[in-house]
Amino acid sequence: MSAPRLALVMGDAAGIGPELFARLLDRPEVCERAAILGIGDARVLARGMDQAGLRPVVAVERELEAALARSAPGRPAFWDRADCDPADCPPGRVSATAGRAALAGYRAALDLASTGRIDAITFTPFNKQAIRLGHPSYEDEVVEAVEYLGIDAPCAEFNVIAAFWNARVTSHVPLREVAGLLTVERIVERIATTRDALRAAGIARPRIAVAALNPHAGEGGAFGREEIEVIGPAVERARALGLPAEGPYPADTVFLRARAGAFDAVVTMYHDQGQIAVKLLGFESGVTVLWGLPVPVTTPAHGTAFDIVGTRRASLGPSLEAVRIALAMASSRDRAGALAPATSP
Amino acid sequence: MSAPRLALVMGDAAGIGPELFARLLDRPEVCERAAILGIGDARVLARGMDQAGLRPVVAVERELEAALARSAPGRPAFWDRADCDPADCPPGRVSATAGRAALAGYRAALDLASTGRIDAITFTPFNKQAIRLGHPSYEDEVVEAVEYLGIDAPCAEFNVIAAFWNARVTSHVPLREVAGLLTVERIVERIATTRDALRAAGIARPRIAVAALNPHAGEGGAFGREEIEVIGPAVERARALGLPAEGPYPADTVFLRARAGAFDAVVTMYHDQGQIAVKLLGFESGVTVLWGLPVPVTTPAHGTAFDIVGTRRASLGPSLEAVRIALAMASSRDRAGALAPATSP
Repeated sequence: MSAPRLALVMGDAAGIGPELFARLLDRPEVCERAAILGIGDARVLARGMDQAGLRPVVAVERELEAALARSAPGRPAFWDRADCDPADCPPGRVSATAGRAALAGYRAALDLASTGRIDAITFTPFNKQAIRLGHPSYEDEVVEAVEYLGIDAPCAEFNVIAAFWNARVTSHVPLREVAGLLTVERIVERIATTRDALRAAGIARPRIAVAALNPHAGEGGAFGREEIEVIGPAVERARALGLPAEGPYPADTVFLRARAGAFDAVVTMYHDQGQIAVKLLGFESGVTVLWGLPVPVTTPAHGTAFDIVGTRRASLGPSLEAVRIALAMASSRDRAGALAPATSP
Repeated sequence: MSAPRLALVMGDAAGIGPELFARLLDRPEVCERAAILGIGDARVLARGMDQAGLRPVVAVERELEAALARSAPGRPAFWDRADCDPADCPPGRVSATAGRAALAGYRAALDLASTGRIDAITFTPFNKQAIRLGHPSYEDEVVEAVEYLGIDAPCAEFNVIAAFWNARVTSHVPLREVAGLLTVERIVERIATTRDALRAAGIARPRIAVAALNPHAGEGGAFGREEIEVIGPAVERARALGLPAEGPYPADTVFLRARAGAFDAVVTMYHDQGQIAVKLLGFESGVTVLWGLPVPVTTPAHGTAFDIVGTRRASLGPSLEAVRIALAMASSRDRAGALAPATSP
């Protein structure tokens, strides 16, 4: 198949994003393997090149169609939306201009995805505070994409670290409501989504651990019955459907096993269950993957790092890994899965 | 003051405990600084010496009084209870004999503690499965001690790793019940107990972080109100009482800060919240501390490691650290705190 078309969206212009963007455009493993369409303001990109001390060759166009036409493997193009005057977003400062432009660029990429003109999206870090100056109710990139595109199917966010992928069944809800929100259907759906996403990322036979809810996985019902009544049956149903799930495993040891290589992914029941582990194991050098949108979307898990803008101390590793995963997913033979993510459980 | 009197209890005879026990008796930092009273079966100790390839000098006595009389700094004594025939507890196998003897030795040490004849207890690992062969309802060493001694005051279990101590407000309860069990009083009590225990262990000015319950610490009430209504007020009341508490902090980042040295202890709201972090950060090389009993009780956090018995691959580090903490607590000027653990909040 032909090389995937990757939209590379400029995140917050005041953070380390522009420097990372310039450095990505300088890397052959990014530009040779994909038709890159950069999306942002060319002045911000120029600032990023200055910050990086690099002058990668990129075809800048004011018109989307022209930029798309010039984008090819080995020849990145940049759609200059001219919507983010660097004077209005000084480095290391929260600004409404940077927030507005990042969100607009992201939406433009989502439009291109939903009309089939690109195959994957990677964006440099957003600054939620900056976005909220213009959009006070902004929640996060998943909710934004789902609402902007009017998506109905399940959409999942994965935290990907070197050791494993993490997906969760519940997320931003009070802990006291978690147990009541767990159902066999939700858990099986999340296992299925995880299997699909991992396959698309190139892990042909993923091993997926499912975390328990209660201490010691409930110890046979002594400390809670969700393992017996909900999570266990969900794992059984998933397996009956051919999904490679195991568990439920006690949450305090499942990550030790995942770290040791026993699993490719851990499906957790609530936000902190996975986040405590993932953050201790290197979330900041990891990647966030959004799955269930028209194309795979990835971003480095770290933030805009306002404190080190311009110092060339930012690590490119997470951004490179974000591109690598996006391209793997876009190129995957399972790519069709991205267009119909709700593998019917 | 005179050297503390430490009861060193032989845990499960079939695990790595006997070898660790023999190696502890060979270490000057154990035997010179305390009057050691070993408690167990001398035949099991002999097996441990064979496993360790060591012959530390120890005065073995069949009578408790004789053993107590001979125990002095630099001259460890061993009370041979002759209750665990090695033939009945082959290495690496669960046996009722080993379980029964370990529990009996522990109770004997608790008796000595409650009558003021020893100042601290350290035990080598128990095997819960072995104990349950004789005592099916056995839960854990804290519950056992509390029930055996008929203790009424709060008793706490700490997981101590190199980076920090962890205490929890709730433990072996279903996750769905956690939020309902949190009260200002319980949280303040646990902060106070933590402060007392850390001080007794030699940390004069402990810094104690209190974890939040909900994702993002509830994000201002958006994902739960316990931070606003219970945990926050508990931290405030604790501080008003002069207790060095901070928080509530989001659970997925508080351990990063504790690992970096910002806190000496983290008080968590539920079992897995702390256990996920502690286990990833090296629980197996850590120490469990029981506090609120007549004397401090410590044990290496690892298990009986049946798979490596006799191979000399067991690490002595956690056992040495368990003794070190027990002796520090026993010697502490705050030792009186151990006798009245419920520092009135």
